[in-house]
Amino acid sequence: MSAKTFTALGVAAAAAAFWSQKPAIQTVECEAPPKKDEKKKSSKTAEDDKKRKLEGLTPDSPMRLRMETFNKQLQAEITARLEKLDGVGKFKVDSWNRVEGGDGISMVLQDGKVFEKAGVGVSVVYGMLPPAAVAQMRAQHPNIAVTKEAMPFFATGISCVIHPHNPNAPTVHFNYRYFELGSEDGGEPVSWWFGGGCDLTPTILYEEDAVHFHRVIKEACDKHDPRYYRDFKKWCDEYFYIPHRGERRGVGGIFFDDLDDKKPDELFAFVQTCGKAFLDQYIPIMERRKDMPFSDDDKHWQQIRRGRYVEFNLVYDRGTKFGLLTPGARIESILMTMPLTARWEYMHEPDLKAHARLMETLRVPRDWIPL
Amino acid sequence: MSAKTFTALGVAAAAAAFWSQKPAIQTVECEAPPKKDEKKKSSKTAEDDKKRKLEGLTPDSPMRLRMETFNKQLQAEITARLEKLDGVGKFKVDSWNRVEGGDGISMVLQDGKVFEKAGVGVSVVYGMLPPAAVAQMRAQHPNIAVTKEAMPFFATGISCVIHPHNPNAPTVHFNYRYFELGSEDGGEPVSWWFGGGCDLTPTILYEEDAVHFHRVIKEACDKHDPRYYRDFKKWCDEYFYIPHRGERRGVGGIFFDDLDDKKPDELFAFVQTCGKAFLDQYIPIMERRKDMPFSDDDKHWQQIRRGRYVEFNLVYDRGTKFGLLTPGARIESILMTMPLTARWEYMHEPDLKAHARLMETLRVPRDWIPL
Repeated sequence: MSAKTFTALGVAAAAAAFWSQKPAIQTVECEAPPKKDEKKKSSKTAEDDKKRKLEGLTPDSPMRLRMETFNKQLQAEITARLEKLDGVGKFKVDSWNRVEGGDGISMVLQDGKVFEKAGVGVSVVYGMLPPAAVAQMRAQHPNIAVTKEAMPFFATGISCVIHPHNPNAPTVHFNYRYFELGSEDGGEPVSWWFGGGCDLTPTILYEEDAVHFHRVIKEACDKHDPRYYRDFKKWCDEYFYIPHRGERRGVGGIFFDDLDDKKPDELFAFVQTCGKAFLDQYIPIMERRKDMPFSDDDKHWQQIRRGRYVEFNLVYDRGTKFGLLTPGARIESILMTMPLTARWEYMHEPDLKAHARLMETLRVPRDWIPL
Repeated sequence: MSAKTFTALGVAAAAAAFWSQKPAIQTVECEAPPKKDEKKKSSKTAEDDKKRKLEGLTPDSPMRLRMETFNKQLQAEITARLEKLDGVGKFKVDSWNRVEGGDGISMVLQDGKVFEKAGVGVSVVYGMLPPAAVAQMRAQHPNIAVTKEAMPFFATGISCVIHPHNPNAPTVHFNYRYFELGSEDGGEPVSWWFGGGCDLTPTILYEEDAVHFHRVIKEACDKHDPRYYRDFKKWCDEYFYIPHRGERRGVGGIFFDDLDDKKPDELFAFVQTCGKAFLDQYIPIMERRKDMPFSDDDKHWQQIRRGRYVEFNLVYDRGTKFGLLTPGARIESILMTMPLTARWEYMHEPDLKAHARLMETLRVPRDWIPL
């Protein structure tokens, strides 16, 4: 495991923007860097949290430490299961530390037997959020006081993108994150919320795969709130839309943000259920698709679809965009979501009916499970 | 030749933004669509110009018609020469018309013997420019009066991107364009300017190729103004920068915009010299590189570099960004600049010295010709 120091004034703001998924935080980079004494404040919480971790976590520990621990455990569990499924490929592990507080682990399996590229990353960021970014967050979180000062924030998240070799096997993505604002010296945060989601991107549409993926996450949602699946499924169809193509990037899943309408413990339980559901969502699909025969046409179509994935990530995905706009961000962690290979053809139209069938559902999203 | 009707309210604004290369015209899409009577005004110029073209052009014809004709002739000349060089591949030709006035020809040669993908496009757009976009143009062109009304505009340009198969042979791009504002009923425009440039993107650095490419365009510049090459070479190095990678996309060339500091005829002559220089810039390089032997490592490195080309185009290139943000734009014409294939590897570093050598010059641009 190589340890790299991750230094950058802009990283705090970018990480905040990343996890909060707000559209206009590009303005963040115009802000002056945080003052030195503000940095120290931020570091105090980070330092205190280090001690708390050494003493051992309990159900009364701050949510940020419990979510961080959950993310790292989930990352370890998922990467172990993916390695087992692949049988050959191994995850390369890069961990990094931030001077201001926080750390991260990027794990990437590249050119395995089953997986073309699989990336699972965890980030933990303590930083100062510039006033412009604070103001934007106030729109969703009115309890944030009006201020001209930068505010301390904390963000942790796990994110995962998996591109298999076999065109019968779908690409998948998930991300779960927790954000806190104003938790100075480890006290109660001014504001906090959870966000996240998962979505499936097939090359060849197998309806039973889409139904399975949605059913497992619906069951996870239903354990916590009967409205969640319906609302977050719709949000997902809206988020993963590629306007210049008039199509979604896949068959959806769920997407949610700014979730603070229940007690933190209840929402943490929801996010844990979702995160733990991931392997049940994806592994059964992979088991039945990874060794299926496929044609050159299927592989070719996969490469075209990979191109659309690149278009979504580079042009629309908020997290990617903010990462790219942030001076000093760890670019390899941001772009580990990219497919290994992609293709662009002028005026390409799918040749095969099976390929054209996918396009119908990307243009008009379906209810895979009755709502 | 298939004729397609190109209808979209946003296209006029996008085309204006494209050719004028202003950074913030994303706001254009928030504007209300032009009023109906404004459309008619715009169309009148277009209709008058149609008649003028039927009567035959002279050196006294409006600049927009002379530039349009030059672009279309240059497109025909270049595509014919590229087909000859390729020996196998043929250009697919798509032409389209705009209801409000204007037309375009997109020509793409895909998967030829020499060229992986070569696109040469010409656009001619008559439209109404929303006041926000007019205001932005005023920054560079102070003779534009303050107005709350949309203004008629005209834009024509030629643009070309060529990706060869052989990794020893570089990708190349050029674009030359002319813009007019307020030319109601075919009278004198309120404001007008030229823009354009060319740049070379090698996979493997051959210094003599970079020197040749720069020398030919420097000679073209020097015929018109001794400052042009020096100024526009620097502008090019700035424009084709990929901040999140800390590198330029290639070895540069020239880039200029808002050029109106001489008489229209003088600047038109300059742009013609540049456009006509293109084949002299590129064909001799291709002749010596297209059949060179190469290794799997070279091909692999080319694919990684193609990925960076995609990153520049989708994330930073103003023309591409505005095109993608414009509802109803002809997406296939915008994205014909994309390479056929590209590759992203986590933490990739060039293995070979020859590949690493390219990176040095992408990080610190060189003066290929003494300035």
